[in-house]
Amino acid sequence: MTSRIVQFVGGTSGEWAVTHSATICGDPLAAVTAIAVNETPAAAPQSWSLRGAISNLRYTNASERSALQARQAGLGRAQAQCAALIPITKSAAWWALAQDERLAIYSRSQHTQVGMEYLPAIERRLHHSRDLDEPFDFLTWFEFAEADSAAFDHLLVRLRASEEWQYVTREVDIRLRRC
Amino acid sequence: MTSRIVQFVGGTSGEWAVTHSATICGDPLAAVTAIAVNETPAAAPQSWSLRGAISNLRYTNASERSALQARQAGLGRAQAQCAALIPITKSAAWWALAQDERLAIYSRSQHTQVGMEYLPAIERRLHHSRDLDEPFDFLTWFEFAEADSAAFDHLLVRLRASEEWQYVTREVDIRLRRC
Repeated sequence: MTSRIVQFVGGTSGEWAVTHSATICGDPLAAVTAIAVNETPAAAPQSWSLRGAISNLRYTNASERSALQARQAGLGRAQAQCAALIPITKSAAWWALAQDERLAIYSRSQHTQVGMEYLPAIERRLHHSRDLDEPFDFLTWFEFAEADSAAFDHLLVRLRASEEWQYVTREVDIRLRRC
Repeated sequence: MTSRIVQFVGGTSGEWAVTHSATICGDPLAAVTAIAVNETPAAAPQSWSLRGAISNLRYTNASERSALQARQAGLGRAQAQCAALIPITKSAAWWALAQDERLAIYSRSQHTQVGMEYLPAIERRLHHSRDLDEPFDFLTWFEFAEADSAAFDHLLVRLRASEEWQYVTREVDIRLRRC
């Protein structure tokens, strides 16, 4: 069985060099100079190690999935020399909501639509961490070309201004460049 | 942080004695005579060890949640001397569906409504295993009094006849009695 779990190891070595890091809210993560992305968790953690599972869709409906698939180019493109790792935790109030209540907030926040506007320039992979007893609920990984860095910043401004982000209690924004 | 992960250890010792076990579909699990339920995973596995996380609601809406909460009595009742551990795996086709497609099948199958009819006699706790790289996708734990055993069998017959169960590719049904 292929592992669904991806490990992000922060330290002094790895295929991605840290160019900038900021704590958006909540507790910071220890500063590191590089991140290794291991599809199969094995390496000993250097400074920290965060794990998340590639999982099924939780809010995306069938028509949104089709629209996303039509625009996605996938990770690992040669021109995508920039990346971001954004670990996020949401509040207990968020997780206590029923599925329809969370979906309504997610939809009003236009999370899928906003992200779709930036495809395929800004590619994204979501990793679910909460059920793994991890310190964050989600680890989102983005890849994009240097020329699209300003667009990526704009995407984040829009998401962080949304109703959904009122439930975010911890967020760290780590920017990277391929070594 | 409290662990969300519960470990079910099958072997020759534990607080629950196996009274009967059946493979409903897919590969069997090794036969064991007892199961230990460890809220904090620590014990070395005896024959096998299955883990699952207590997580947020995935399909239940707010009104269903209220109705469920009004009827639930919780686990650990003195009269609930019987239990069942039912590990289940669903097909790749199920997991490839978008959220609205899975919700539609779940709703048409009346999964929540059928389960609710048997509350509080048949108490249930769902554990999510798929994102933990476990062999099963779900571990459902039920507790009920001896007198409600026939009702429990009836509940399972109804669920297994549902559209949702057409996506179940592996299911083992282990019946237990408190030692």
